[in-house]
Amino acid sequence: MTGPADGGKPTKAEARRKALRTALVAAAERRIAADGLGALRARDLAADAGCALGAIYTAFPDLDALILAVNLRTLGLFEAALGPEADGFDAAGAADELVRLGQAYLAFAQGHARRWRALFQHQLADGRRPPDGYVAEQARLFRRIEAPLQALRPDLPALERVLLARSLFSATHGIVMLGLDARLMVLPVAVVRAQLDLLIRAMASGLANAGGAAAA
Amino acid sequence: MTGPADGGKPTKAEARRKALRTALVAAAERRIAADGLGALRARDLAADAGCALGAIYTAFPDLDALILAVNLRTLGLFEAALGPEADGFDAAGAADELVRLGQAYLAFAQGHARRWRALFQHQLADGRRPPDGYVAEQARLFRRIEAPLQALRPDLPALERVLLARSLFSATHGIVMLGLDARLMVLPVAVVRAQLDLLIRAMASGLANAGGAAAA
Repeated sequence: MTGPADGGKPTKAEARRKALRTALVAAAERRIAADGLGALRARDLAADAGCALGAIYTAFPDLDALILAVNLRTLGLFEAALGPEADGFDAAGAADELVRLGQAYLAFAQGHARRWRALFQHQLADGRRPPDGYVAEQARLFRRIEAPLQALRPDLPALERVLLARSLFSATHGIVMLGLDARLMVLPVAVVRAQLDLLIRAMASGLANAGGAAAA
Repeated sequence: MTGPADGGKPTKAEARRKALRTALVAAAERRIAADGLGALRARDLAADAGCALGAIYTAFPDLDALILAVNLRTLGLFEAALGPEADGFDAAGAADELVRLGQAYLAFAQGHARRWRALFQHQLADGRRPPDGYVAEQARLFRRIEAPLQALRPDLPALERVLLARSLFSATHGIVMLGLDARLMVLPVAVVRAQLDLLIRAMASGLANAGGAAAA
């Protein structure tokens, strides 16, 4: 939504719209965390925010945009859980960091299960891409993986490193998702943790060796 | 559904029920392949099979059981795509086989996208586990991964190998699912193929090294 045309202080209408957006995001976040994305209903959100049903669409173009705003906060919650960015990894430290990131992801998925699932249950209508702010937050999170990857594989060009970070995340996501989902077998989370450790270390070790071979 | 009580030839009623089950599975399979699991409606299936809506439930206890029957056929389709079981791998052959299995999974997910997604979209009601035949087919498919794993890690006890096969699959599934899903980035499938190769080889190499270290 646009700000003041003259660059001055926001009008009362803009201030109300901003307050409504905040109230709706808070309400949606609370409901998604409590009952999951599938239970989200516009009329409940309107009631929570104290507005008419149609008024939602003065704050957001559609429900997709509202859900994306909640998902962006979820990504922020995860980023906060990771702690401050680090760098200057040696090879052993890089592997430890990749394991740490993977375990943090598992812990987040377990501790904020419904918020986490909403990240993946939400499909944008065909041809729509997420807003720039969302893509930027995803990129910031992937850079957390790229940093230790750069230490493990300084030979890799930036684009390869960017791709590999996303693939490493995808592999971790698969282990976490199916491990917590009981579709394959009912596993205690301690077992998922151990498998994640084993496989991330194997990937880190195998990637490092491939780099050594490439350098040789 | 039970067979003849006296162990003799099936009654006409049992033969009709069997024929209805076959017709319903064929109809459900066709519709899932064409329009996806989300579009499946009992009334469409009844119309396809030429039976009353309620008659479906003489053939299957519920729609879940029918969908499981289709998903079982999908697993069988994938198993057929893998070709005959092999063994006698050396370490290099084992890594190649793991890559081959992963690429076959990617190709299957791409070539039978709706059938493949139905495997993961379908949630059983809480507390229900899949029928023994389904679990047995899953186990048969996982043994395809356990065979090369045994060659890479002869030191691993059977239970560890069983767990690791499922985790390796989960990692592969994550790469395939997010790679094909365009949620992270729109990737040509050739790029997903290359990333899968890279990461499966890294995992195989890292696992083999960990085994060598364990043996040392």
